Amino acid sequence: MLSLIVSRSVTRLVTQSRSLATLSHQASFFPDEPSKPNVVTPVPGPKSKEILSKLNQYQDTRSAFFVADFSKSKGNYIVDADGNTLLDVFAQIASIPIGYNHPAFLSLAEKPAFRTALANRAALGVSPNVDWLDSVEKAFMSVAPKGMSNVFTAMCGSCANENAFKTAFMYKAAKRRGDRDFSLEELNSCMKNEAPGSPDSSILSFTHAFHGRLFGSLTATASKAIHKVDIPAFDWPKAPFPQLKYPLEEHEDYNANVEKDALTHVESLIVNAKKPVAAVVVEPIQSEGGDNHASPAFFRKLQEICKRNDVLLIVDEVQTGVGATGTFWAHEAWNLPSPPDMVTFSKKFQAAGFFLHPRFRPPQAYRLYNTWMGDPVRAMQAAAIVQEIKERDLLQNVQQVGHYLRENLKQMESTTPIKNMRGQGTFIAFDLPDPSQRDTFLTKMRQKGVNIGGCGDRTVRLRPMLTFQRHHADILLDTMKTVLST
Amino acid sequence: MLSLIVSRSVTRLVTQSRSLATLSHQASFFPDEPSKPNVVTPVPGPKSKEILSKLNQYQDTRSAFFVADFSKSKGNYIVDADGNTLLDVFAQIASIPIGYNHPAFLSLAEKPAFRTALANRAALGVSPNVDWLDSVEKAFMSVAPKGMSNVFTAMCGSCANENAFKTAFMYKAAKRRGDRDFSLEELNSCMKNEAPGSPDSSILSFTHAFHGRLFGSLTATASKAIHKVDIPAFDWPKAPFPQLKYPLEEHEDYNANVEKDALTHVESLIVNAKKPVAAVVVEPIQSEGGDNHASPAFFRKLQEICKRNDVLLIVDEVQTGVGATGTFWAHEAWNLPSPPDMVTFSKKFQAAGFFLHPRFRPPQAYRLYNTWMGDPVRAMQAAAIVQEIKERDLLQNVQQVGHYLRENLKQMESTTPIKNMRGQGTFIAFDLPDPSQRDTFLTKMRQKGVNIGGCGDRTVRLRPMLTFQRHHADILLDTMKTVLST
Repeated sequence: MLSLIVSRSVTRLVTQSRSLATLSHQASFFPDEPSKPNVVTPVPGPKSKEILSKLNQYQDTRSAFFVADFSKSKGNYIVDADGNTLLDVFAQIASIPIGYNHPAFLSLAEKPAFRTALANRAALGVSPNVDWLDSVEKAFMSVAPKGMSNVFTAMCGSCANENAFKTAFMYKAAKRRGDRDFSLEELNSCMKNEAPGSPDSSILSFTHAFHGRLFGSLTATASKAIHKVDIPAFDWPKAPFPQLKYPLEEHEDYNANVEKDALTHVESLIVNAKKPVAAVVVEPIQSEGGDNHASPAFFRKLQEICKRNDVLLIVDEVQTGVGATGTFWAHEAWNLPSPPDMVTFSKKFQAAGFFLHPRFRPPQAYRLYNTWMGDPVRAMQAAAIVQEIKERDLLQNVQQVGHYLRENLKQMESTTPIKNMRGQGTFIAFDLPDPSQRDTFLTKMRQKGVNIGGCGDRTVRLRPMLTFQRHHADILLDTMKTVLST
Repeated sequence: MLSLIVSRSVTRLVTQSRSLATLSHQASFFPDEPSKPNVVTPVPGPKSKEILSKLNQYQDTRSAFFVADFSKSKGNYIVDADGNTLLDVFAQIASIPIGYNHPAFLSLAEKPAFRTALANRAALGVSPNVDWLDSVEKAFMSVAPKGMSNVFTAMCGSCANENAFKTAFMYKAAKRRGDRDFSLEELNSCMKNEAPGSPDSSILSFTHAFHGRLFGSLTATASKAIHKVDIPAFDWPKAPFPQLKYPLEEHEDYNANVEKDALTHVESLIVNAKKPVAAVVVEPIQSEGGDNHASPAFFRKLQEICKRNDVLLIVDEVQTGVGATGTFWAHEAWNLPSPPDMVTFSKKFQAAGFFLHPRFRPPQAYRLYNTWMGDPVRAMQAAAIVQEIKERDLLQNVQQVGHYLRENLKQMESTTPIKNMRGQGTFIAFDLPDPSQRDTFLTKMRQKGVNIGGCGDRTVRLRPMLTFQRHHADILLDTMKTVLST
């Protein structure tokens, strides 16, 4: 049986022999994982409630599902404070890559370099540690999207996106400026937050987009009003993101037209912008906004529009990146003729940041900068994730399990109220008839042992880890059938 | 000799006996720390240069001083890739609290709860771990500024400040709105980044302020044009921060007038604001902007103005917090009659976030929210920092060493070109005649074995760790004398 704790040499052997790896594919990645959910109290149970009630003195706990006991969680199963064992297809808002208490992560804690990084947090822009170069190569450059040899490391998805926005603004301003240096007027006016130093430029994003919750990223976000209301925003434009009809094969003409209209809108907004558009930012799959997909052709044409109008294309892979769509980066599926300009990441990578071509480096130092410039500890974890994905062929696992899940969910559309099943890899979603039925479904699923989350208004999103296998999928599907039949 | 590795029981004994603790105060906190700097190559040396040159393929390394070898660094001494041992009074841009490879940090790596937190990164808003409550209490609530029983945890200083800004905007909007719910117009307009949902509100900050580099925090920042130019900013106002003359005792009237003028400006900007001011944000000591101080009376009057005009007061303690000024929070020295409204932190605390009164919690859930909501690993480190500060009485150490340093630097003003010495605790700065002399001084100091940084245009800032002692101060002062005499 292929297990995670086989020795490195055995692993290599297995990986090299693709046919054997494929044959053994359904063997568990976690030999000591629970075999099924086990629910012993309501979720949240009395212990969760007690802890949350105490915590609520200090922090707002209204969003909490339950209190986790990560020390008892394993692989695809999360255990809560009351001892409930739940199959987890929400995975800390899509941010657990390879399972709870993964041996690759646990063994990192034994490594001297990891302990050194933990005990001595570097200001990476001032004095990176001797092994930072190794982390950058193993964690980031080894999976850099084609044509992107540079990476800016950051702290979270919002700040990855905002630094990418800043990069776009600086690049476009430098291009406008040409060979001349900053003018005194630019330098003085920016200190007063005034033009020309603080330019009236913009980032174009899409309706239903989610790019974060800080002031620049929240301006680009349009998932839910409650995220945005009362917070000042820049006057940046929003193009409609295509709202496709499902099943795709029955709505080809309609969907092609919706995508065409959206693209026409994008180009019109760019051409007629009051505030010149420096970049377009787009998610490969709009995740918080309801798992909205568009075709690869849509994204290829979007890139064409950007190039035609000298606008940069930033692909926000904070939620889609790191394997869940079946490719390491979701945008690989678009077959773009040339790379996007920047690709941002966070969540499942544990480390955050963005990839870029070196031509986007600001001409002057200290313009993309902050105290920590990322976190070496999380970068070492990212390197471990990359290694696991490669050694275990987790992308193939995602593709196979994703296919199996989608086939089964497709069939359930005729026998249950679920509709509009859509997905790539295991990054799958479907809708329920209305928000209230969706919310009831999520609560009941949790009560039946599956931790699952929603997005948009009435959408259920599946965000299992990359180590989610067919036997987990069967439990998920069976539980769904039980819940949906009541 | 009092050492860091004495057993807990001995430690308690020593701590309880204040007189003994005071007597033994000059014994080293790190028995295995180097006794003095040792420079064997130019800084940066050939190995640093080689690594930086390789790293520069992937990341902009123009801001790097040298490459650190943290595995060999200890206490107040940083060792670089070439084996140079430098006394470190820059401390990763003021972000190392208690020294390199501190036993309290190293021993954390042995603790099961710490390993669990490392291997299983929680989305704290969804499913905090069973021990998160303990971290919140030990790391944050045990040092919460008076009257602030709530803490929002975040990822870095910029995002701590921006979430505080958001809190202020939501609080003020809720107050304006009164008992009524959001209007449809508010909910719809914010999705288009338009008023009234995206309101024309503002945060008032000061000239020379530094509050971060993301879009909201960068708008509030005014340290250097190169940080801001080409990046869109909100039209938020800036009041002049008083530029005091030194020595203070010779310029009492002048300084009092400068502070009075600044405060008049603040109130006038608030009263006449085009965009209503939701909050004033201020650093206790403007750090990046050149270590600009103001009197406790200035801050008390600033709070009066805020209260009179129903504007919140946010104190940005990202750089000043966690002990270096001789009190845990620098604003403790102001003796405010009532607490500020929010206090933000990051850097030396390793964990980031802000303290607030629970009345500032948004009335609806999910409005102050993100995936990770902080980092449990860094919170456990913050708890260890708090414990060390208390057990070793590091605040007293800072006060004593700070006094010694300031007395000596004061004397040096008459024999060397340094001027305008100012400081609280060991959070000390002085000026050199011009930017070029300042930069030369920093380079020469590093070459003589002291890692030191600047801020503002011609300022040298001292940012030693809390474990910086008199024998370290002597090395710093002697090296300064040598460098300044050439």
